[in-house]
Order: sequence, then structure tokens, then C-alpha cells
Amino acid sequence: MPTSAELFHVQTPRAAWITLTQHWQPEVRLERTPIQDALQRVLGQQILAPEDLPAFRRSTVDGYAVIASATHGASATLPALLTVTGEAPMGQRVDMPLGPGQAILVHTGSMLPGAADAVVMVEHTQTISLDPSHHASPVSLASSIEVMRPVASGDNVLQVGEDARKGATLYPQGHRLRPQDIGGLAALGIVEVSVAARPRVGIISTGDEVIAPSHTPLAGQVRDVNSYALAAQAQAAGAAAVCYGIVPDQHHLLEKVARRAKAECDLVVISAGSSVSARDMSADVINVLGAPGVLVHGVSVKPGKPTIIAVCDRVPVFGLPGNPASAMVIFDLFVEPAIQALLGERRRRPISVRARLARNIPSTTGREDYVQVNLEERDSQLWATPVFGKSNLIYTLVRADGRVKVDLDANGLQAGELVEVSL
Amino acid sequence: MPTSAELFHVQTPRAAWITLTQHWQPEVRLERTPIQDALQRVLGQQILAPEDLPAFRRSTVDGYAVIASATHGASATLPALLTVTGEAPMGQRVDMPLGPGQAILVHTGSMLPGAADAVVMVEHTQTISLDPSHHASPVSLASSIEVMRPVASGDNVLQVGEDARKGATLYPQGHRLRPQDIGGLAALGIVEVSVAARPRVGIISTGDEVIAPSHTPLAGQVRDVNSYALAAQAQAAGAAAVCYGIVPDQHHLLEKVARRAKAECDLVVISAGSSVSARDMSADVINVLGAPGVLVHGVSVKPGKPTIIAVCDRVPVFGLPGNPASAMVIFDLFVEPAIQALLGERRRRPISVRARLARNIPSTTGREDYVQVNLEERDSQLWATPVFGKSNLIYTLVRADGRVKVDLDANGLQAGELVEVSL
Repeated sequence: MPTSAELFHVQTPRAAWITLTQHWQPEVRLERTPIQDALQRVLGQQILAPEDLPAFRRSTVDGYAVIASATHGASATLPALLTVTGEAPMGQRVDMPLGPGQAILVHTGSMLPGAADAVVMVEHTQTISLDPSHHASPVSLASSIEVMRPVASGDNVLQVGEDARKGATLYPQGHRLRPQDIGGLAALGIVEVSVAARPRVGIISTGDEVIAPSHTPLAGQVRDVNSYALAAQAQAAGAAAVCYGIVPDQHHLLEKVARRAKAECDLVVISAGSSVSARDMSADVINVLGAPGVLVHGVSVKPGKPTIIAVCDRVPVFGLPGNPASAMVIFDLFVEPAIQALLGERRRRPISVRARLARNIPSTTGREDYVQVNLEERDSQLWATPVFGKSNLIYTLVRADGRVKVDLDANGLQAGELVEVSL
Repeated sequence: MPTSAELFHVQTPRAAWITLTQHWQPEVRLERTPIQDALQRVLGQQILAPEDLPAFRRSTVDGYAVIASATHGASATLPALLTVTGEAPMGQRVDMPLGPGQAILVHTGSMLPGAADAVVMVEHTQTISLDPSHHASPVSLASSIEVMRPVASGDNVLQVGEDARKGATLYPQGHRLRPQDIGGLAALGIVEVSVAARPRVGIISTGDEVIAPSHTPLAGQVRDVNSYALAAQAQAAGAAAVCYGIVPDQHHLLEKVARRAKAECDLVVISAGSSVSARDMSADVINVLGAPGVLVHGVSVKPGKPTIIAVCDRVPVFGLPGNPASAMVIFDLFVEPAIQALLGERRRRPISVRARLARNIPSTTGREDYVQVNLEERDSQLWATPVFGKSNLIYTLVRADGRVKVDLDANGLQAGELVEVSL
């Protein structure tokens, strides 16, 4: 009798992902949130500018609003003489009249008077007579100024809509909000946004040998690492982790917990016991959870070959290797993109650096390899050194700075090659 | 009468930071947290391995535990014949006797019997007679197996302490916890850690022209961007933001709010009104908050020259430019490192990529420039293009992928140069 794994062909990572997407339509749940709580959330709608920013012409410097043509030909030896007729108050409408021979004192951010089309920086002026009540400031309400440099129309002026034009697309749907985006929304009076609700990721650890980390293992027992490491990965991806604890390798027990997780969550991750029989049991349980069931059993990737990908009643269910280091690699490869799909998130540029490989990485054609590396700056060049030690150790991951992928069709990588290191 | 700014020499960013650290001893407050809540928190203590991981020898494959010497010279044509005397149960002590001519069935993760020193992978064996009760698994409790390849002592065995050695330093104090670290802690039974409490960062916006984003600005008024953008930056750095709202440009009002913020927070940020008089008022208020007061007023950086750095009764106080884009650059330059100091965080490698500059960036010697750029992959080369538009627009920041620094002593950067882009 063949085992479950033998009923399936091992698929490439890319084919496995396509198989999943052919059987799964991710549904993005939306909720509204005030912008001060929206950092790192993913927009559920595109955002258009509701108005022009700025809404009025503003000075970008401290100086004097003028009609530019009045300064033509001005120089230190032959300055233009202007009469200062007033000061633009901050935060108020400025509607003073301004003639060609006149100037109005403005501050950075001031509204420009209607007739003005440029601002002369205070550094390029000299005051002729001081109003004694204003001597504490270098920008003074002098009765007359000499302008030592000409300005062109528009100089030192922020035009209406120059920052953002009414109706322009500010952010596409699926954009993850950064600090500057929160600021940009505030600037336009958008104080609440529609964002994707955090997907609920159910996490189940299985294995007769697995105990809670707070307990002291007896001989043959190991602590549950996956519930904690995978929950942290889910959080880092923007999901809410729901941990269902450790389930012994018994079909009816796992089925009961998995059914509950499937009902309560948007996505379920089962880290299988590491023995073949435990892995087969995971597949059998997943198959009774709902149709279509297991789609992929076995992926041509190292580590993580025994990966299971399933959809049960529209909920994606992943069977991850029991080994924590392998489970984390497979999480990054399949579960994180699935979380992104549930967030409706646009593909981000992966955060990676280019480095030169310090040692050969052997590999086998027909398999994607993920190798942990350390980064080191040497001779003004970044070097990636494969981390010594078995790849299935959790502390190999802890010690590594990043990960290098060896392509499916590559027969390993040579020392000296330039490689892309995902951080 | 000179203005406050004129009493100070403009300092380089590096000198300004050193001045701050000479007058400030950051105090890291600690708190304990369960590891499931510790993602992205900064360790307040170094962590040593309390025990060996693994605590017993484990098989890394499905197969048969053997005495390696019994397989010497084995090949497909001349296999070694071994009698299978039992199966190692998962999660239990394995103390079965094992002789040179014997093998014990083990699963990935099983404890090794005492006499075994290697594991033969099941793929390299053939069963001679099947126990009919085990036919569902490829790893069967056969009564005899033929071993087709020799193993050396230690093959496919995880040794005691191979993942982490008792007493070894797992994480230094000041390490920011990633998902794999949470897993690593769980593996060793460390379920609670001491971490730096989130520093409280008080944020005050000032300016007669500034109104809450939920309000509709009248002519001359602008919405408060800084409270939101800087709070998001503080959160992203691992701090808790406490917003004190918008304060008009009046000394007694700002002093009252600033005193409260200083008493309640570990660090205070005041985004000054953008006019010279408003900036001077910030400096005057900061000087009455406590000794030693303003240390730096003016930094040779663009944008952000009018930056104020102060320490008042052991609380650092930063006066940031009113312009949101400038304020955000200065936050990254000074406030984020101060938050890291309050977290006791070790310096992280900045996340940056190397790219070729697509256009010249003019600059002035004696000033650090921070220029927003877009990144684009072209001819299998990453290109950085300076973002068109005034640098003091918030949407210039929104549209940018990263930032290029032009060094103090550089006279601009040339198109084609390789530059480091901070993301």
C-alpha cells in the first residue's frame, strides 16, 4: 500500500504555489481604523487626494513677498528699493494689497498675498530703517528694504497642489502604510482608513515527543518550538496568530483540533510530527477536513520537502515539517505569501542585499535550496559565508544574517559568485 | 540683540550627537514579558543556554540505528545483513540493547539507543522479511535488513549540545528579537525574558497656523502632520508615542505642555513652528525646562538645519523643524538613535542597498545632504533616481523608495556613482 506522499508527485515551489492559487480565492476582510493605529496596516481601498495640498500658495522661506518683476536687475551695487507695507500673519488669510514697489514680510509657511508671485529671502535683503519694536528678529518689519538679488516668478513659493493634486492617486489599494504615509494622510485630512483585518492564522503543533516549553523534557522529549516561532512569523507578516497547542499523533485528536482551527481561522498551519507516519497522519486528517483537501504533498525544496498544501472548504491548510528550521523556511515560502494574499497586499520588493559568496554551496539540480549565510564586510565588499552546522538546527537560523536561494536548475553555487541574500 | 540661534555655532551631525551623549546617560527601564509577546523587543540581559540542546542524541532521518563499524564495506552487491531487534518509540527513553549485528528502527527525531553511533537512512536499506502489521510505512519493522551503503560514526545523528551548548551565549544584551529567536528561546525552555520597556516619546506640535487633521483648514491654516508622522516613526523604532496635541506659539502655553511631557516621558520632541520667531521661542522654552538646556541649535544638515538638541533634567528634548519632511529626516538622524539608546539596543546593520546614481546630486561642502530617491532595476543594475520635487514636501517622502546621504566633505554626487540607499 503506497503512503500518502507516494500518491502525489513532488512539485516545484512555483508549481505548488500555482496549484494553491487555482483552488483558493483569498477573501480580504476590511475594517476601519484611525490613522494613528494604521502603521504597517494594508490599505483596503485606493486613496485619492480629496483636495489640493497646499490649498493656498505658501512661502518656503523667511523673507518678503514681492512682484518678481520689481526685482529685475537688482544687485548688491544696484539694489531694488521696496517699501514694506505689512506682515503676513501665520495661520490667517492674507489679503493685503501689494504693488510693484512694495513688499510684505512673510515667514516660512505663510500664505502669500494675492498679487505676490515670489518671495525674496531675507538673506538677500538689507533693511533701510528699523521699526524699533522688532529689533529682536532678523526678519524685521522695516519700512524699506534693499533687494540685492532678483527673483523669478515662483521663486521660494509652494504652489497650490504642488505637494498633492486634488484627485491624484496617493496610495494604491494593498499598500502597506509607512510613517511618511501616516503623515501624508493627516496632511489631507484623512483621519480614518479602510484596512485589511489581520488574518487569523491557526497554529497546531503535533508530535508525541513534543511538550510545552515551560515543562522539563524527559529523555526522548523535546520542547514545542514551532508554535512560538511560527506565531512570531505570522505576527511579523501582519497576521494574528491563534495557537491551538500540542496535539499527540492520534488521528481523532488532531482532527478535532484542526476542525476547530479551520472554523475559527482564515488559514491553518499544522507542524507535523517529524516521522513519516506522523506526516502521513497529518495528510489524512487534512483530507477529511473538507474539499478539495490535499493538493500538494512534497515540494522540491531543501529544507522542507515533506510540505503539504491543501484547501479545505476555502480555508488554506499547510502541513509544515516538524523540524523548526525547516518549518520556518517553508513558512516564508508559502504561508507568508498566503497571508499577503489575505491582506490583499501588493508584492513588496524583497529586502535583500547582493554579496559575494565566500564558499561553494553544493546542490542538486531539480531542487531549490535555501542556505543560511552570515554577512561580513571585507575589502569594501560584502561577503556571504554559508553558516556552518546542520541546516535543521534552530540556532543555525539564529546565527544567520540571511538566506541564499540556489535555483531549481542550478548545480550549486561557486565561491566568488555574486548572490542575492534575503535578510 | 542676537537671536538664540546666533548664540550657537552650527554643528556637524556627528558633533551634535557627541554633544548630546556627553550630557546624557540613557537609563534603560526593564520589564519581563512572555516570549510570545517578545517579538521585536530588545533583550535587557544576555541569554545563556541553560542546558544542552538537544539533551540527548537524536536521529536526523528515518532509518535504522546501528553500530557504524557493522556497515563497513557494505555495498549494493555486498550488503551488510542486520537483524532488527525493535523500534524506538517517539518521545520516550530508548534504552534497548544493540549489538554489532543488530539495528533498531528509528524515526526522524527519535532518541538513539545507547550503543548506536550512526543511523542508516531507510533509502539505503532493503527489508528481508516484512512484519505484516507495519506494511503501511516505508520504514518497517522488518526482522532483517540489508544495508547497501556504509555509515561512519556520527552519520545522521544530532549530538548532545550540537544545536546549543550549555552555558554558551545565545543572545547578547541589547539584541532585538526576531521570530527565529523566539523559537530558539522556546527550544531551551526560556518562556519569559527581561526586555527594555518601550521608551515614552512625548510629541508636541506647535504653530499658530496648525490645526487638527480632522478639521477643515481656513485660508492660511495647515493640518498637523508631525504629531502623526513622528508618532509613527517612534512606534516603528520600538517606542510608545504620547501625543500632547497642538500648542499655539505662546511661551507660557508651550512651557506648560512641555513641562508635563518632560515629567511623563523619557524623551520629548517639539516640532517647532516654521517661522524664525517660533523656532526661537521653542529654544527659549526648552531652556527654562531644566539644566543644562539647549546644547545644539543648528546642525549642518539639509533638510533640518534649525534642529535643537537639549537635555533638561536628564530628559533629552529635541526641537525639530516644523516642515514634516525635514522633521522626519531629523527624527531618523537623532531621535531614533536616542530611542535605541533608551532601549539599550545594539547598533543594527542599517538596511540599505547599493545602487548607481541616475542623475547628479549637487551639494555644498560642509553640509550633510539627505536626498530622497526612487529605485529602479534596469539592465540588471539597480538605479537610484533623485525624486523630483521640493524636498520639503511630505509626498516627496511618500513617493521615495529610500534616501541617499551626501557626505559633509563631498561637493555633490555624480551620475553613475555607486551610492548606498537607506530604505
